[in-house]
Amino acid sequence: MTISYPGHGLDRADHSRTDPALLAALRARADARLLLMDALSPVLDAANGLSYGAAADLPPDAETVFLGMDGELPVFAVVPAEGDDRPAYLQKPNWAAIALLGLQDMALYATARSLVDWHARHRFCARCGAPTHIAKGGWQRDCPACTAQHFPRTDPVAIMLVEHDGDLLLGRGTQFPPRSYSALAGFIEPGETIEQAVAREVWEEAGVRVHSVRYIGSQPWPFPSQLMIGCHALAEGRDLTVDYTEIADARWFTRAEVAEAMERRADGAAFIPPPAHAIANAMLGWWLERAR
Amino acid sequence: MTISYPGHGLDRADHSRTDPALLAALRARADARLLLMDALSPVLDAANGLSYGAAADLPPDAETVFLGMDGELPVFAVVPAEGDDRPAYLQKPNWAAIALLGLQDMALYATARSLVDWHARHRFCARCGAPTHIAKGGWQRDCPACTAQHFPRTDPVAIMLVEHDGDLLLGRGTQFPPRSYSALAGFIEPGETIEQAVAREVWEEAGVRVHSVRYIGSQPWPFPSQLMIGCHALAEGRDLTVDYTEIADARWFTRAEVAEAMERRADGAAFIPPPAHAIANAMLGWWLERAR
Ligand SMILES: [Zn+2]
Ligand SMILES: [Zn+2]
Repeated sequence: MTISYPGHGLDRADHSRTDPALLAALRARADARLLLMDALSPVLDAANGLSYGAAADLPPDAETVFLGMDGELPVFAVVPAEGDDRPAYLQKPNWAAIALLGLQDMALYATARSLVDWHARHRFCARCGAPTHIAKGGWQRDCPACTAQHFPRTDPVAIMLVEHDGDLLLGRGTQFPPRSYSALAGFIEPGETIEQAVAREVWEEAGVRVHSVRYIGSQPWPFPSQLMIGCHALAEGRDLTVDYTEIADARWFTRAEVAEAMERRADGAAFIPPPAHAIANAMLGWWLERAR
Repeated sequence: MTISYPGHGLDRADHSRTDPALLAALRARADARLLLMDALSPVLDAANGLSYGAAADLPPDAETVFLGMDGELPVFAVVPAEGDDRPAYLQKPNWAAIALLGLQDMALYATARSLVDWHARHRFCARCGAPTHIAKGGWQRDCPACTAQHFPRTDPVAIMLVEHDGDLLLGRGTQFPPRSYSALAGFIEPGETIEQAVAREVWEEAGVRVHSVRYIGSQPWPFPSQLMIGCHALAEGRDLTVDYTEIADARWFTRAEVAEAMERRADGAAFIPPPAHAIANAMLGWWLERAR
């Protein structure tokens, strides 16, 4: 059993990306949809779906990304003047809005948010410093000075449930709300496998050796551009050496504590679980379900 | 059963990265090792291991990355003047040298190659265009003009064995040597799960719908900075619609053909399998083993 998420349901229509005339014609269509965002946050309609305007109303020089075809309708999003420069652990998603989104809308918002934020923060060539321009419908930037091509980032992150004797190791980041605990996680570094990253992060953050790492599911996470790779691992022991320069705390929770936290959310439970749309929440549900 | 690779065996010693004085002292040590590279290719010693010089012999202003501690010995690598600007499918690894490396050396070379190549191609701030400087022992670059921080890239790629009725779907890229076939693969895009990327790539490249995607292992691949995520999937049918703008060919191979190709390599077999150090090779071995 693994965790799975629905996609956004659009045809990414990657061949259209390489045809500037076709892209321009798609954007000029009266029925071309423009995914609305409030800076980088989603804009919800009355039914808590994503809101759309008309791409044809944009000024001709507006930078847009082509998200794909929703049936017969092309869908675009605008690159804002400013991206979010904060590191991942300091980004503050609009949880209230996100919690209302369906998973398919969440996938489309994630795609758009990652892409337009990347463009807003990458307007210059990392190779030579010259200004670059958007290309391939927003799936690339080109440098006219040195001809380098630049592509949107997707940063793989390992996130893991660590188990020992039926208990689960959870931690809290320094920016977490009070009493919140979640799965440990960290960026996969150059030269590592997923499994090695899981073992290294748990060792660095909690001082525990793990084995039997297995994959349980993945989720794109657009704050700013992670691919969350969920894993389960077994700990060799339960003595913890928490690295308080990296995390605020880590501790073992019993199955009953995890079950109560997931059922009751806040009041009275041992901890507050991660938000419903985060893969860490689905991983806790997977873990409880699995042992039944 | 999954595919696993050994790590490079060094302690990445991430706390040392944030201590410039400690890093300088480590590099000045007479026993500090310098991993030698010929441009971006590995340099082999007489026993086909990686070759090392002395970090202390470097000019003081040489840009280096700190790879970690090999037992008591700090290990560094130099950032070259030029990186490899070609896209991933045009990079030409020195296969003759790489084939001789043990897997642990391969992991260290992969780490070093990804890191130093990234620095050589990212000397300017993508946010403002100003020159940046190396930071955190080579695991970051900082912009003095706008204070942006930039991190080495790791680009997740889905690579997949697609099976139908006991046969395997393999393809060849436009740059492959004659008669070579391998697993289909493609970059995971912003907003996608691993499983969605597998389904999209197989559909785009070969016109086949897949289901039951499962993870079988991962491998870092430093040409230039991929994390290869190996999967297995089942095809809904065997009719192919190959996209010849993306790949040179795709076709079904029988189990006997795959087994013969893996045993005999070149002569007389139906195709030439991927090189021994690529995860695609291990995936073919995994697939043959699994059905026994
Ligand atoms: Zn340039
Ligand atoms: Zn800058």
